[in-house]
Amino acid sequence: MNDTAFQDCYPEELSHCYGCGKNNPHGHQLKSYWQHIDEDDLLASVTVARFTPSDIFTAIPGFVYGGMTASLIDCHGTGSASAMAFLAQKREMGTLPPLRFVTGALNINFLAPTPQGVELTLIGRFSEVKDRKIVVDITLSANDVVCSTAQVIAVLMPNSMTPSK
Amino acid sequence: MNDTAFQDCYPEELSHCYGCGKNNPHGHQLKSYWQHIDEDDLLASVTVARFTPSDIFTAIPGFVYGGMTASLIDCHGTGSASAMAFLAQKREMGTLPPLRFVTGALNINFLAPTPQGVELTLIGRFSEVKDRKIVVDITLSANDVVCSTAQVIAVLMPNSMTPSK
Repeated sequence: MNDTAFQDCYPEELSHCYGCGKNNPHGHQLKSYWQHIDEDDLLASVTVARFTPSDIFTAIPGFVYGGMTASLIDCHGTGSASAMAFLAQKREMGTLPPLRFVTGALNINFLAPTPQGVELTLIGRFSEVKDRKIVVDITLSANDVVCSTAQVIAVLMPNSMTPSK
Repeated sequence: MNDTAFQDCYPEELSHCYGCGKNNPHGHQLKSYWQHIDEDDLLASVTVARFTPSDIFTAIPGFVYGGMTASLIDCHGTGSASAMAFLAQKREMGTLPPLRFVTGALNINFLAPTPQGVELTLIGRFSEVKDRKIVVDITLSANDVVCSTAQVIAVLMPNSMTPSK
């Protein structure tokens, strides 16, 4: 198992995301990892990310605003999809050609307010793995209470989004 | 029609949201307004918000990251729900008791990449209006191209989220 965060394996020119890019000094720089890899049953593999939002990201005082929740879920979803795509191809993450995923749909159910000042844990599981489409089911928890459940439908990044060098 | 932004009618102690609170100097301070009011057919009323994200909120260079899209949609949705709740009660927005809404579910379809450096326009329409639940359907456009469609299921804020004074 590779200890490098999924997002740190993205190509340099695709690492500027405000949510998770190592080349965006202003952003959250979310880091996602494998919690469990099952090469025989890909859908049994599990990903994890942890993040403690700073106090400015308020909704109602005491609680994290919904945009932060969405951002963390979105970036953990596309990162998990990329990692799964490499796993399915039996390639080490970060090898060429890159497999960068973007979000086709993001569906979040807010079950409980997300408390501030607490480390949030995102767990990703997979319900569909195809070459160009990977569906990631995510829970976001605080203090072992599930605050949100979500589904990220991630699609392989279209060539039209590739930055010119 | 009142020219004051919906979010500027929120009670002071409920105006700290990073996405739209006037009392959060670090945040986006999104402002939503009525574009059209139909008091005889509430579901025909329409809301609007405009916002140009700064360059730090990158996804892939040249495009706005998904968390920003989600944040704008979320805050325009809950703001529109609050405004609609006052309209349905034939009360001026901002009068007491407050009608602050939070997000129960947020569902976004990303149809096209959202370009950076462009004013984004959010249009809100209503598909369900009840006392404690209002469903807002939102489009987010850039240069007259719809980049995302979304549904915000907004629910009246539970008393458990009210900050102590």
